[in-house]
Amino acid sequence: MMTAKRINPDLQRERDAATIDPEELTRIIFDGAKELDKKRKLEDAVFNDPDYKSIPLNFMSREEQYEEGIRRSAIAVTKKEALGDLIENHNDLISYNTLACGIGNAFFLHESMFADSIKRMATDELKQKMMPLQQKFEIIGTYAQTEMGHGTFLRGLETTAHYDPNTQEFVLNSPTVTSTKWWPGALGKTSTHAVVLAQLYTQGKCHGIHPFVVQLRSLEDHKSLPGITLGDIGPKFGYGANDNGFLRLNNHRIPRENMLMKYSQVAPDGTYTKPPKAELTYGTMTFIRSMIVRASAFGLARGTTIAIRYSAVRRQSEMRPGEPEPQVLSYPTQQYKLFPLLATAYAFFFVQKKMVETYSVVNQQINDGDYTRIQELHGLSSGLKAFTSWATNVGLEICRMSCGGHGYSMSSGFPKLYVDFTPNCTYEGENTVLLLQTARFLVKSLKEGKRGAKLPGTVAYLSSNVTELRARATSAGRDLKDPRLLVALYKERAMRQIMFASDKVEAARSEGLDLVGALNRASVHLVRAANAHSHLLVVENFHEKLQELKVSQKLKKTLLQLFQLYALDGITNCSGEFLEDGILSGTEVKAIRQYVVELLPLIRVNAVALVDAFDFRDEVLDSVLGRYDGNVYEELLKWALSSPLNKTDVHPSYDKYLKPLLHRNRSKL
Amino acid sequence: MMTAKRINPDLQRERDAATIDPEELTRIIFDGAKELDKKRKLEDAVFNDPDYKSIPLNFMSREEQYEEGIRRSAIAVTKKEALGDLIENHNDLISYNTLACGIGNAFFLHESMFADSIKRMATDELKQKMMPLQQKFEIIGTYAQTEMGHGTFLRGLETTAHYDPNTQEFVLNSPTVTSTKWWPGALGKTSTHAVVLAQLYTQGKCHGIHPFVVQLRSLEDHKSLPGITLGDIGPKFGYGANDNGFLRLNNHRIPRENMLMKYSQVAPDGTYTKPPKAELTYGTMTFIRSMIVRASAFGLARGTTIAIRYSAVRRQSEMRPGEPEPQVLSYPTQQYKLFPLLATAYAFFFVQKKMVETYSVVNQQINDGDYTRIQELHGLSSGLKAFTSWATNVGLEICRMSCGGHGYSMSSGFPKLYVDFTPNCTYEGENTVLLLQTARFLVKSLKEGKRGAKLPGTVAYLSSNVTELRARATSAGRDLKDPRLLVALYKERAMRQIMFASDKVEAARSEGLDLVGALNRASVHLVRAANAHSHLLVVENFHEKLQELKVSQKLKKTLLQLFQLYALDGITNCSGEFLEDGILSGTEVKAIRQYVVELLPLIRVNAVALVDAFDFRDEVLDSVLGRYDGNVYEELLKWALSSPLNKTDVHPSYDKYLKPLLHRNRSKL
Repeated sequence: MMTAKRINPDLQRERDAATIDPEELTRIIFDGAKELDKKRKLEDAVFNDPDYKSIPLNFMSREEQYEEGIRRSAIAVTKKEALGDLIENHNDLISYNTLACGIGNAFFLHESMFADSIKRMATDELKQKMMPLQQKFEIIGTYAQTEMGHGTFLRGLETTAHYDPNTQEFVLNSPTVTSTKWWPGALGKTSTHAVVLAQLYTQGKCHGIHPFVVQLRSLEDHKSLPGITLGDIGPKFGYGANDNGFLRLNNHRIPRENMLMKYSQVAPDGTYTKPPKAELTYGTMTFIRSMIVRASAFGLARGTTIAIRYSAVRRQSEMRPGEPEPQVLSYPTQQYKLFPLLATAYAFFFVQKKMVETYSVVNQQINDGDYTRIQELHGLSSGLKAFTSWATNVGLEICRMSCGGHGYSMSSGFPKLYVDFTPNCTYEGENTVLLLQTARFLVKSLKEGKRGAKLPGTVAYLSSNVTELRARATSAGRDLKDPRLLVALYKERAMRQIMFASDKVEAARSEGLDLVGALNRASVHLVRAANAHSHLLVVENFHEKLQELKVSQKLKKTLLQLFQLYALDGITNCSGEFLEDGILSGTEVKAIRQYVVELLPLIRVNAVALVDAFDFRDEVLDSVLGRYDGNVYEELLKWALSSPLNKTDVHPSYDKYLKPLLHRNRSKL
Repeated sequence: MMTAKRINPDLQRERDAATIDPEELTRIIFDGAKELDKKRKLEDAVFNDPDYKSIPLNFMSREEQYEEGIRRSAIAVTKKEALGDLIENHNDLISYNTLACGIGNAFFLHESMFADSIKRMATDELKQKMMPLQQKFEIIGTYAQTEMGHGTFLRGLETTAHYDPNTQEFVLNSPTVTSTKWWPGALGKTSTHAVVLAQLYTQGKCHGIHPFVVQLRSLEDHKSLPGITLGDIGPKFGYGANDNGFLRLNNHRIPRENMLMKYSQVAPDGTYTKPPKAELTYGTMTFIRSMIVRASAFGLARGTTIAIRYSAVRRQSEMRPGEPEPQVLSYPTQQYKLFPLLATAYAFFFVQKKMVETYSVVNQQINDGDYTRIQELHGLSSGLKAFTSWATNVGLEICRMSCGGHGYSMSSGFPKLYVDFTPNCTYEGENTVLLLQTARFLVKSLKEGKRGAKLPGTVAYLSSNVTELRARATSAGRDLKDPRLLVALYKERAMRQIMFASDKVEAARSEGLDLVGALNRASVHLVRAANAHSHLLVVENFHEKLQELKVSQKLKKTLLQLFQLYALDGITNCSGEFLEDGILSGTEVKAIRQYVVELLPLIRVNAVALVDAFDFRDEVLDSVLGRYDGNVYEELLKWALSSPLNKTDVHPSYDKYLKPLLHRNRSKL
C-alpha cells in the first residue's frame, strides 16, 4: 500500500519529469475507467482484510506454504460469496482468487477444469448429482490427464478403464510405472475427486481416451480410498504451495455412470457408442493460450516495474572523480537491457487484446456453423503463446540480473516471479511443439496462397508474392522509423522464412519422405518460420493499435516510441534474417542499431511513468526493490531482520557443530 | 554410484552405438590419467563415507540446509586432515570440499579470501598471531567488502575507520543504511572474524579503502560483540545453506595493529604512510575468473548430461499411427536445442585450459618485471568470464525446458543447478561492466594497431586491416566447414564490430564529449564488440586445441564435428553481424543453417558417449532424470514418495481448514 512516507527523491524526480499521465495509460490497459475501478476495489477488498495477512511466503517451509495456501483458499470461498456486486463474472472471480490466494489457489482446477468437464461432458443425471456438490464445496475436484511418461501426446496415455458388465462397473488400473498420473494440481493432498482420463476397454476392444469421475478420498475423514495410491510429487522449482500430485489405480472400481457419457457411451451390457463427431476443442485451448499471452505481458510488466524503479533509485560508479554516482537508469547499457522489455510488455498487452477479439469473432462464426477460421485461430494462438512466453522467460532473468546482487535475493520478488512464470513455456502445449503446429498451418497456407486461394486475416500476406512485398517496401530515402515500412519489412522476413522452410519440406519429400517425415526433417527451419510469423503478428498488431487508440498527443508520441523501439530492436536481434534476402542492407542495419540507442534516452523520460501505468500495488508486486516509494534500502534491512535465521543471535548449530570444532584444541589441554 | 541394476535399454543402445571411447575424452578433460584417478579416489573418499549421507537437500527447510552445511563443513575439517596423500595441493583441497560440502562449504571464505588477505597484507606480527588460529579453526573468518548500496564500485564504500591516537584504536562505523555490509558469505551466523574494508580516516583526512581484521563474535559463546549488529540477509534464489550476512558497526573499536599494514601504515601517532605503489591485483582476479569459465563449462556439461541421457530414455508422440513413440533425442528440434550446448561445453573446457596457461605465462612475465601483457590478460579474462557465464546461464534453462515438465521438478537437479550457477553472471565483476572493460582495451588496441604498434597474442589480429583479413577468407568455392575459414570469418566479424564501436566513440568525441562520456554514449556497441571478440577467442582456441590434441582418429573426427557445430551454429545465431559487412553472403548463411541441421544426426551417434565423458557420478549430478542407468521413472516415484508432504496420507491442514469447509453444510443441519 502507498503510505504517507516520503518518496525517494530520485524516483520522485523521474515522476515529475514525465511527459505522460500514467493513469491515462492504466485505463487503456485495464479496459476503461469502470473496469479499472473494479480492479482497485477488488484489491482493497483483499488487502484491507486482515484475514489474508501472513508472514512472507519466502520465510515459510514448503509445508507451511501448502498449509497457508489451503487456509487462504478455504476462507476465500466464503468471503467471496459475501462480496456481491464486485464479482460480476468469471473474470472477476479469477481476479479475486488470484489476489486472495496469490500464494496458490488450491481450488483452481476444482473451479475450472473439473467443473467444466462435468458441465460439458457429463450426462444430465451425473451433472445433477455432481454439480451441487462441486458448487457447494462438499467435494474438491481436480483433473488428472498427464502421466509420468506421457505429456503432450494424449493418445499415449496408459491408464486403463475396463468395463465389467457383471457389476456394471469400470475397473481402473495404472498398469505400468509410466502410467502413474503425475503433475495434476491439488491431486496429492487436497482433492477428494478427479476427472481421470483413461483408455476405455469394453467387449475386448480399446476405444481410446475417455474421462471418468473418480472419488479419491473419503468424504468423512479424507483418507485415500482402497485401490488408490496418491500423494505429492515432491518439491518443484516454484509452486511450493501446490500439491501437484501422483495417482496410481489398482483394480479400482467405479460405477458405470461415472463415465462422462454425453458424447460417447457404454451401455449396461458393455456396448460402446462412439461420439457423433470429434469435438471442437480449439476454442478452449485458444482461450487458455490467450491467458498465457496475458501472463507474459503482465510478467514483463512486473519485471520491468521492479527493475526500472530500482534502477532509478540505485546509484553506482562515479564516471569522473568527484562527480556523484549516476543513477543506474542513466547508463545506456542498463536502458538497453530494460526498455526493449518495457516496449515488449506493451506489445504483448495489445496483442493479447487482439487475440481475445479474434477468439470472440471466430467463436461466433463457429456457433454460426462457419469453421473456416478455426485453423488460423489455432495457428495464431499456438504461435503467440510460444513466442510471448519464451520472450518473457528470457526477459525476466534479464530484469533480475539488471538489479545486480540484490536481484538474487528473494526480497527482490524476482526469483518467485520467474519460477512461477516459467512453466508457461511447457504447459498447455510445449512451446516447440506449438510452433511446429503453427508452422504446418503456415506451410499449408503458403501453398494454398500460391494456388490463388483467399487466405484468412493473419496469413493473408502469404498470398502476395515477395516481389510485391518488396516493391511496397523499397523506395529511395525510405524512413526506417516509419511504422508502415517496419511492418512491411517484418512481413517480408516472415514470408521468406516460411518459404525457406517450405522449400526444405519439399526437398525432403522429393527425396521420397512422406509428409510427416519431411516436416520432421525440416523442423528446425519450421520453428524459425513460425517464430518470424508470430513476431510479425505482434509488430503488426502494435501498429494497428497505435492507430486505433484515442489518446492524448503526448501519450501517442510515447507509444509510437515504444513501438519503434520494439520493432527496431527486434530487427537488430535477428538482423541476419533481414539481411540474407536483402530486405535490409548492411548500412541500414547499422543505422537501425544506432536508432535503437538514440531512442533509449527519449523513453527514459517516461520510463518510470510507463511502469507506474501498470498499476501494481506493492502487495501484488511483493518486491522490496520495486516499491512505489523507492525506500529500498531501509526496507531491505527490515526484511532481512525478520528472516527466520535471525530469530536468535547464536544459531543452534553453533553448540552442535561449531563449538566442538572451535574448541577442540582447548579440550585437549 | 553405478549399481548392478540393469541399464535402461534405450540408453544402453546409445552407448553401444557410439564410435568413440568416452574414457579417452575423460582423460583429456581431467588433465591425464593420474589426475583423473585422483579425482575418482577423492569421490570415493567422500561418497563411501556414511558421515556425508543425508536426506536430499530439496526436502530440507532453509534452516535445515544451513545446519547440514555447517555439520558437513565441520566434519570435513578433521576428515581431510586424515586423507594424507590424496590432498596434495590447493586444487585437491577445493575438490574435496566441493564434494564433501556440496550443499555449501561454510568455510570457503575462511580458507580463501580471509586467509589470503592476512597472508598478503598483514604485518608479520599480525600474521603470526592470526594464521595459526585460522589454520587450526580456532576462529572462523570471512571477507566483508560489498555494502548494501555499493557493489562493483569499490571507492564508493561508506564504512569508516577513524583512528583515535589517544587509545591507539580504530573506531569503525556504518554511518548510513547503505553502508551496511551486505552479502559476504558465512557472515550472518558462522564467522567469528572478518576482514572488513573501510574508508580510513586519520589526522582529519580520508585515505581511501583499507582492510581491517575485526572480531565479530565471542570465542567463548559465539555471541555478537557490543557495537556489532549482524545477521543473515534472508533467503535467496539459491545458496540456501549459506548465511550470506549483513554487518553494522557502531563505534566499534579495534586495536591499531588490526589494520592490515604491510603496504600502508598508520603510526601510533596517527601519521599515515601510503603504499609504495598500487598493487598488482590483476593476477588473482584473472584466476578467479578462469574458475568461473571452468564453472561455465562444468555447468553446461552437467546440464547436457542430464538432458541428453533423459532424452534418450524419454519417448514421445508417435509420428505415424501404430509406430512406437520415438526417443525425444531423435527429434531434430531436440538435437538443435542440446547439441550446440554440448559443443559449447567442450569449447569452454578448452578455452579455460588456455586461460590457465596464459595466466601462468603472464604471471611468470610479471614476476620477471615484464608488465606488457597485463592489460591483455585482464581483457581476456573479463570478456571470457562474461561471455561464457551468460551463455551457460541461458543454456542451462534451455536444457531444463528440453526435459518438459519433469525438468521443473527438483528431482531433475536443474533448479538447483541453475540457481547456484546464475550468480556467476553478477559476482566477481558484473558481466556488462566486465565487457565494457574488455571493450576499452580493444578500442585502445585497435588504435595502437593502426599506428603500427605490435599487439600481444589474443588481439594481434587487430593490427591487420580488414582488407587483408577479407583476402585471407575470400576465395571461390570456399568450404564453409573448413575450420581455418571459420576462424578467419569470426576474426573479421570481431574486428568489424570493434571498428564500428570505435567509430561511435570517435563520433561522440568529435561532438565534444570527453573519453569517459564518449565511451558511455557508445557503450551498447562496445558490449557487442567485446562479445564478438570473446566469441572469436573461444572459436580460435577450440581450433588450436583440435590441432594440438593427440587422440585417436575417431575422437578427432568427433571433436571436429563439435567444433564445426559450435562455430556454424554461432554464425546462425548472429548472422547479421556476418552479413552486414559482406563477410558472408545470404546464400552462404542459408547454407550454414542447413549444415547445422545436417551435423545434428552425426553428433547424435556419440551424444551419450560425449556426456558420459564428463564423468559425473550420480551423487554429483544429483538428478533423477540424468542417472547413469537411465532408470528414471521408478526412481522418480521413489523420490516423490519420500517427500516430506507424504509423511501422512491426510495432511494436518485437512482438520484445520478443509474439513470445516467440506462439512460446513452438514453442521448447519
